[in-house]
Amino acid sequence: MPFAQIYMIEGRTEEQKRAVIEKVTAALVEAVGAPKETVRVWIQDVPNTNWGIAGVTAKDLGR
Amino acid sequence: MPFAQIYMIEGRTEEQKRAVIEKVTAALVEAVGAPKETVRVWIQDVPNTNWGIAGVTAKDLGR
Amino acid sequence: MPFAQIYMIEGRTEEQKRAVIEKVTAALVEAVGAPKETVRVWIQDVPNTNWGIAGVTAKDLGR
Amino acid sequence: MPFAQIYMIEGRTEEQKRAVIEKVTAALVEAVGAPKETVRVWIQDVPNTNWGIAGVTAKDLGR
Amino acid sequence: MPFAQIYMIEGRTEEQKRAVIEKVTAALVEAVGAPKETVRVWIQDVPNTNWGIAGVTAKDLGR
Amino acid sequence: MPFAQIYMIEGRTEEQKRAVIEKVTAALVEAVGAPKETVRVWIQDVPNTNWGIAGVTAKDLGR
Repeated sequence: MPFAQIYMIEGRTEEQKRAVIEKVTAALVEAVGAPKETVRVWIQDVPNTNWGIAGVTAKDLGR
Repeated sequence: MPFAQIYMIEGRTEEQKRAVIEKVTAALVEAVGAPKETVRVWIQDVPNTNWGIAGVTAKDLGR
Repeated sequence: MPFAQIYMIEGRTEEQKRAVIEKVTAALVEAVGAPKETVRVWIQDVPNTNWGIAGVTAKDLGR
Repeated sequence: MPFAQIYMIEGRTEEQKRAVIEKVTAALVEAVGAPKETVRVWIQDVPNTNWGIAGVTAKDLGR
Repeated sequence: MPFAQIYMIEGRTEEQKRAVIEKVTAALVEAVGAPKETVRVWIQDVPNTNWGIAGVTAKDLGR
Repeated sequence: MPFAQIYMIEGRTEEQKRAVIEKVTAALVEAVGAPKETVRVWIQDVPNTNWGIAGVTAKDLGR
């Protein structure tokens, strides 16, 4: 621990996901002094048809 | 806030997802008086091979 | 199914939570025609020290 | 209740998922005496590009 | 991996939670052959005022 | 978006939680170039009786 579940709109590159995992892990290690080997991060890609902002889908908002 | 994460068996139409986002957002605004702009809803589509009801997959139950 | 996990800042009344459960359930039944008996909703109360908006805790933002 | 959300690296067979649902349901029934019909289990497949172990993606670790 | 997030109505004993963690871990090891050391299970206790079954709170249903 | 749900063993100070929210938000902004105002982070405190590592509770492991 700690663990982080990240929700992002679908479409990010593998490189961006690598960066999310690396930087979020570092942020958690720094913030609470957790040993790096115990930190897990997983990303959930959410299609823009499945993401609602103030009642409207991200797709309909052109995201 | 508030936020809502919705789990549904995979296969709903885009129109149904639009309705889920719109109606769940309205329900949260009405129930706790939250400003609509702060409400987020996201839907997780679960394949019927990945959903278990009383120990049996939804697929094996013909869902 | 469907299921809804709701995240709200801690402090809502039991009456408000009753309304969230009732209205979110109705919204899901209406939106995808799910049988009401299959719908589950659960609420996660998040302390304002544990909720971050644009990098600042809800507590520090006076929420 | 109880409900179980399972996170696994993408790529497990349908047979393995069937076994996860069956055995996790039985484990919960045994552990807390819950009626089997009330137990739900759902599996989230996480691509190896989306799973981070100690800051490195499962893909880069060859998983 | 795999990881399991368990949702249960608040009020289970420490002994029951120990059993959930032990048995769900064993179930996942058996089902997909995962090394036991990689399995994590965490339990979320949900107050009966926060859990809705077919639109009604577990508390109002006398659970 | 993106959003981050953080799971940590109960007992971290308010200051540590502030640091988690600040640093994880910055990590996400840096990693995918998301506008800071759209990033949300929430922390779930998990009691050591509710957290299982390789089938044993964190409490029994003396965490």
